[in-house]
Amino acid sequence: MNVNGKPFRTIWFDDDGDTVWVINQIKLPHQFELMPWRHLADAVQGIRSMVVRGAPLIGAAAAYGIALAMKDDPSNQALAFAQEELFKSRPTAVNLRWALEAMRHRLAPLATSERAGAARQEAALIADQDVENCSAIGDHGLEMIAQMWTKSGQRSPLNILTHCNAGWLATVDWGTALAPIYKAYNAGIPLHVWVDETRPRNQGSSLTAWELGQHGVPFTVIADNCGGHLMQHGLVDLCIVGSDRTTARGDVCNKIGTYLKALAACEHQVPFYVALPSSTIDWRIRDGVKEIPIEQRDPKEVTHLSGQTATGQMATILLTPGGSQAANYAFDVTPARFVTALITERGVCPASEDGLAELFDKRSEK
Amino acid sequence: MNVNGKPFRTIWFDDDGDTVWVINQIKLPHQFELMPWRHLADAVQGIRSMVVRGAPLIGAAAAYGIALAMKDDPSNQALAFAQEELFKSRPTAVNLRWALEAMRHRLAPLATSERAGAARQEAALIADQDVENCSAIGDHGLEMIAQMWTKSGQRSPLNILTHCNAGWLATVDWGTALAPIYKAYNAGIPLHVWVDETRPRNQGSSLTAWELGQHGVPFTVIADNCGGHLMQHGLVDLCIVGSDRTTARGDVCNKIGTYLKALAACEHQVPFYVALPSSTIDWRIRDGVKEIPIEQRDPKEVTHLSGQTATGQMATILLTPGGSQAANYAFDVTPARFVTALITERGVCPASEDGLAELFDKRSEK
Repeated sequence: MNVNGKPFRTIWFDDDGDTVWVINQIKLPHQFELMPWRHLADAVQGIRSMVVRGAPLIGAAAAYGIALAMKDDPSNQALAFAQEELFKSRPTAVNLRWALEAMRHRLAPLATSERAGAARQEAALIADQDVENCSAIGDHGLEMIAQMWTKSGQRSPLNILTHCNAGWLATVDWGTALAPIYKAYNAGIPLHVWVDETRPRNQGSSLTAWELGQHGVPFTVIADNCGGHLMQHGLVDLCIVGSDRTTARGDVCNKIGTYLKALAACEHQVPFYVALPSSTIDWRIRDGVKEIPIEQRDPKEVTHLSGQTATGQMATILLTPGGSQAANYAFDVTPARFVTALITERGVCPASEDGLAELFDKRSEK
Repeated sequence: MNVNGKPFRTIWFDDDGDTVWVINQIKLPHQFELMPWRHLADAVQGIRSMVVRGAPLIGAAAAYGIALAMKDDPSNQALAFAQEELFKSRPTAVNLRWALEAMRHRLAPLATSERAGAARQEAALIADQDVENCSAIGDHGLEMIAQMWTKSGQRSPLNILTHCNAGWLATVDWGTALAPIYKAYNAGIPLHVWVDETRPRNQGSSLTAWELGQHGVPFTVIADNCGGHLMQHGLVDLCIVGSDRTTARGDVCNKIGTYLKALAACEHQVPFYVALPSSTIDWRIRDGVKEIPIEQRDPKEVTHLSGQTATGQMATILLTPGGSQAANYAFDVTPARFVTALITERGVCPASEDGLAELFDKRSEK
């Protein structure tokens, strides 16, 4: 996607093959800054601190992290160490494990002398695959939006609510939840996006708003509290969100607050779509509420917030009385019954074991 | 309630009778500052800018505003002007109209020479009445909490979720939603409060957290997005919120986001209580979703946020890309069917026309 008119991905290898470049998402929306990663530790730190975030991008970033590790030391020990370090950097994203397994599968049989080159190739392949998958999600989602637009009588722009950032910044390019929106916008379907700010880290008001603005898609930022009221008053035609982990039965683990929007959508018969590449599906688990451990992050993300002052400086402010206790559950699980359909790279399917089986030949192992 | 061990109300007349003092709630939780109001314009500005907020306190503040106006000019014209100015200062709070009507009813028949003194008396009466009502709400709510505590087997502290600030800062003293919590805490019932931060103005993380902390009640601040997850995992025993306007059938208009919590509570069979003085009931209206106009406030409350920097200065930061559009609906309506019961100064009743009729002899006029 374009930044100030110039095409970018969120992660790529430099021509020299020694440096990985990423968009530093912590600095957005106020600064567009690229960050170089030269060693494994840079990738681990970048994933943990959310310089890069979003399940698909975390997967790709982990692959690039392995490539950096192999450049420095292609031994078995170094490969195992890199896998472990990267795996621990963000516990929820199943893509992380998926990408690490793909890398190990490719690299473990090779002679150490071949690993650095192969790792670079494989990481680039994972990134390209992600772009292709996201583009396909966009195409399938576009069909659904186009049908809805026809059905709506084509009178006023479709209002789409999204939570968090499942845009191109959450992937290598295109995005998951936002890919159908970009494709629909490009196809000339009039639409407007309600952007949940997505406390505590405000990925909506910082990243999604920035992305949509760069592409010219009309949007309005709202407090996370607002969606129930909007749906109650017919101001939302559909919701599309992403997923960090999807169970074999179609339960969806996504950014905290997704579940509240799904409940409101259900109450008001607003279609609630979840867009995801199949790398996000954890085929081993079925019951998301019982089986997915929810990452708890630093309470400071709740008690403090960073942004730009009137003079253009970045500042971090305290919101609570000093010393207040805070809890920071990062994700929640939306049971499949609240999901209208899943939008995957292979097509749109019901959020159920059978629905997923129609598109994918895997079934859960339990 | 106590501030640093010293008892305070949120609003009171100075001994000289010329000055109204209020706690400047915009400065909390970082500074405890008293603000003098000397004329009508101070009261209008203070209500509009949310120096004082909370439906019951807005009612009392309007009464004090009339008293300030009468001190300066007790003419019929000045009385009508003061009423109109105060009425426009916050559109949602029905208590505002209620208090203004009570003041007019008391003052209009009097000779102008008697109005200043009578207005002071009447405003003090309205304030005292509010304290009495809130204390009664606390007593009735305490009974409910005590029963729940007994029923729970008294093993672990009761977890109570609240949204926004319906504490003593939202009233003259005691609070509405928090009054039962204070009374239960004082009665030795172990409890813990989940405090929704309540974007966009963060009344939860600033005011509720501050209040509970001053009183020693254990609490944890959470993002508004968090409640669905907590209820899904059995971590909330009951919800108590306040109400800015309640319809004759028991629909409740409260801070934006309340409705999402009510939906989650309903899904997980968590009791959802709404505490309110009867001055909050608008007997003329029945269908809250259709009939209550929702106040839209400055979008800057969504795009910007103020807090304290590490050096103790106050700073306002921008959260979105510059120029982003934002919407700021301040309230939403929770239909009566999602409300377990209303806690009023006269007792606890079902959220329905019949329920309210059991406690109050008024019925809606439609």
